[in-house]
Amino acid sequence: MDGLSLGDPLFATYAIAACLMILKAVSMSWLTVARMMQEKGGFRSPEDIRKTPLNPEPDPRQLEPNERVERVRRIQQNDVENLPFFLVAGFLYILTNPSLLLARVLLYGYVASRLLHFAAYFTARTHDTRATLWTVGSLILVFMTVRVLLAALGVV
Amino acid sequence: MDGLSLGDPLFATYAIAACLMILKAVSMSWLTVARMMQEKGGFRSPEDIRKTPLNPEPDPRQLEPNERVERVRRIQQNDVENLPFFLVAGFLYILTNPSLLLARVLLYGYVASRLLHFAAYFTARTHDTRATLWTVGSLILVFMTVRVLLAALGVV
Amino acid sequence: MDGLSLGDPLFATYAIAACLMILKAVSMSWLTVARMMQEKGGFRSPEDIRKTPLNPEPDPRQLEPNERVERVRRIQQNDVENLPFFLVAGFLYILTNPSLLLARVLLYGYVASRLLHFAAYFTARTHDTRATLWTVGSLILVFMTVRVLLAALGVV
Repeated sequence: MDGLSLGDPLFATYAIAACLMILKAVSMSWLTVARMMQEKGGFRSPEDIRKTPLNPEPDPRQLEPNERVERVRRIQQNDVENLPFFLVAGFLYILTNPSLLLARVLLYGYVASRLLHFAAYFTARTHDTRATLWTVGSLILVFMTVRVLLAALGVV
Repeated sequence: MDGLSLGDPLFATYAIAACLMILKAVSMSWLTVARMMQEKGGFRSPEDIRKTPLNPEPDPRQLEPNERVERVRRIQQNDVENLPFFLVAGFLYILTNPSLLLARVLLYGYVASRLLHFAAYFTARTHDTRATLWTVGSLILVFMTVRVLLAALGVV
Repeated sequence: MDGLSLGDPLFATYAIAACLMILKAVSMSWLTVARMMQEKGGFRSPEDIRKTPLNPEPDPRQLEPNERVERVRRIQQNDVENLPFFLVAGFLYILTNPSLLLARVLLYGYVASRLLHFAAYFTARTHDTRATLWTVGSLILVFMTVRVLLAALGVV
């Protein structure tokens, strides 16, 4: 790899996967906002039931948990627990100089597993479906991290 | 850019913005600690109401949610949902070789939006003010990420 | 440092610390899964009490908070609030070209503080023990970040 260049196929693979995951994570915030506006509720701060242009008819019940909003928050929490670690592990993994094919399988495989995990969680599929998709992503993350660790330790 | 050197103006811009955001995030933990000590409450773990030098007069009510502590926790949660993604997106954005001026506007603009978001949230300004400031930061993050994605895809 | 090479002792130090922290963070997800299976409870989504091969005898009480599961979730939340920032700060810190000895003390010291913090939290030691261990890690993080900030500002 010729330094960190977006023109390098290996680094570009990482950058594409990273950007897709960042956009996915940011989308969860926007989706929370969209659902709070649809539901006119699911707010969390006392000041959110003040009368404002965005909330012309405030009501204390707007601060109660709203399952449609909470669902997106749980999905976002799952992102927060996983994606930052993928973003760093994927970057370091590229530095081990894997084959382009393997890098694509792992990095795009992770992206696919997370998008399918979102679809399963958002549409309330059974726990087993969601857990299986999460597991695929988590194993890819562990594999890449262990590979980097062994390289940094000089083992392989 | 001559590699990842803190002496390079573009990379230094990223590093300054990143460090300010990391210090901001860490400060939220310290602020939570400070508020828990002021309030002598807002704790979360059963063992936190054992008698210790830091908690000489324990009371089960110390485990009840305390709004002054919860406010800082909500602010911190907002950081956790946003800053890690900014830290990676900003780094990749610098690799697209933007003009120094544009990089400064975006990266320092993001930092400013987050510090103002903190001020608005901490002082319980109306939701609309807080949401507007969050939106500015989020749009900067999306812009940088899309720019990197297009560069990595070879589109621009 | 000759670019970002895992063969470089300084960069390898960062990579080893980063990988250990990523594996630690991922382990918290697996530990949550393990505890939910042991307790057959502590679930969060309404669909998790559907009858499935992994949950053959569903019960609404499975959605109630379970302290053994919640403990791991609190530990994981603490990771989420700290580790992503360490992963970026440690990377930038290496670019300031510290001595290998100092880098090892700080980066491995951080790793040690987090593993001990986990041990103290997991076994419900008193708050003071846990807080002390967290403080050590947080101060290392602040030290590295301030060092990078000063270097990027051209101060030192």
